[in-house]
Amino acid sequence: MNCILLPKNATSISDPEQVIHIKEVLKCQVGDSLTIGEIGGNIGKATITHINDNEVLLTDVTLDKKPPAKLDLTVVLALPRPKVLRRLIMDMTSLGVNKLIIVNSYRSQKSYWQSPLLNRIDEFVFEGLQQAIDTVPLVVEFKKRFKPFVEDEFPALLVDENAEGEQSHAVIAHPYATQSWKTYLDIAKSKTNHKDTMPKVLCIGAEGGWIDYEVDLLCQHGCTSVSLGQRILRTETVVNVLLGHWLEA
Amino acid sequence: MNCILLPKNATSISDPEQVIHIKEVLKCQVGDSLTIGEIGGNIGKATITHINDNEVLLTDVTLDKKPPAKLDLTVVLALPRPKVLRRLIMDMTSLGVNKLIIVNSYRSQKSYWQSPLLNRIDEFVFEGLQQAIDTVPLVVEFKKRFKPFVEDEFPALLVDENAEGEQSHAVIAHPYATQSWKTYLDIAKSKTNHKDTMPKVLCIGAEGGWIDYEVDLLCQHGCTSVSLGQRILRTETVVNVLLGHWLEA
Repeated sequence: MNCILLPKNATSISDPEQVIHIKEVLKCQVGDSLTIGEIGGNIGKATITHINDNEVLLTDVTLDKKPPAKLDLTVVLALPRPKVLRRLIMDMTSLGVNKLIIVNSYRSQKSYWQSPLLNRIDEFVFEGLQQAIDTVPLVVEFKKRFKPFVEDEFPALLVDENAEGEQSHAVIAHPYATQSWKTYLDIAKSKTNHKDTMPKVLCIGAEGGWIDYEVDLLCQHGCTSVSLGQRILRTETVVNVLLGHWLEA
Repeated sequence: MNCILLPKNATSISDPEQVIHIKEVLKCQVGDSLTIGEIGGNIGKATITHINDNEVLLTDVTLDKKPPAKLDLTVVLALPRPKVLRRLIMDMTSLGVNKLIIVNSYRSQKSYWQSPLLNRIDEFVFEGLQQAIDTVPLVVEFKKRFKPFVEDEFPALLVDENAEGEQSHAVIAHPYATQSWKTYLDIAKSKTNHKDTMPKVLCIGAEGGWIDYEVDLLCQHGCTSVSLGQRILRTETVVNVLLGHWLEA
């Protein structure tokens, strides 16, 4: 937690994890300044006036800094093992992804959809925001039927609202694609009608990757299939490797 | 496991994890072809002749493909919580880091050095190799005393053997550095005496980052301190974001 995220107009903190973090990790005392953020709002500072077992009270709340910009990017992710979902969602939130659509895929086991972790998405987003000092939650949607999603909803994700209906690009990461990621980036750079190399949509498979049918269907609906090279990486690693290219540094 | 890593001249597999993977994840049967690698050697294929509860027997072993190139890069990592060490080492191995030096830092708790996970490093490297279809292990060293390491051993890491004693660059990731990562990359690109933008050494802090004294000491010994921007990322995320820039794709 690099900031404590609070509801609008809050002057007290009673969330047990936040209180423990302030007391035991940050080792704050009365009079100390704390980095805080308003959910969906600005980032700033507050001064601690009181600490007890269950509560931290604040004064001089100043929220004068905008949160970091989001990436204008939707990630379409095949439902992975629920165990890795927490870190994936934390990282995508921390790296500033705008929207995440979790879809079913051939290699997503049916039991994954029953996991109680799927009800804790908001919590993982919250963790990612507090890690990255951001306040605007990642939007997460679930699409349990792959084919209707790709055929009926996917194309709309590619329409760039700022460019009068122009089709933007989408990328699917696939270890066996013939085009490499670097070639893709070079081509994207050479096109003057795109201000940067970031696609509008990034499709990332789960453990075992996409099957050919899924790759083909996504490609028929506007995706370019790219390979990250000879080394096959974990889903989490791929997400960070790709998103790292557009980190505002 | 995208390949099964075996000792030289092996024609049978008896490692329980590998046997379970072949039977339960890959669902292989007699006659199927298996992607294998020789530890430290080539990658190739073999045909399965027999499967029982404890063993898989192979024939027609062909090892005709070189493993992917390593990055000419040493990562200096502050000892993190042992819990995250497994994924960090797996990912660095998968991404092709050549050498990892794990150092003590002010924010590495003393108890971390007692963790039994520190004796399982070879296992984590092995997992990373089998993930990425590589065969050459990451070299891992421990340096429990930060100051003597930086003063006496760090400068030697920066001497580029291929460039007749020329000093190569080293980077320390630090959220509060004034120079941004992007500026650093632009400057590196503009220098004609470096064929690419990859530093020779990358220093990455653990949870809570480096303290000023550590950043200063590393900078006195050849490091450039760079920030990844406003968003503060987990150690694992930083590793993948940075290393992803030099992935052979």
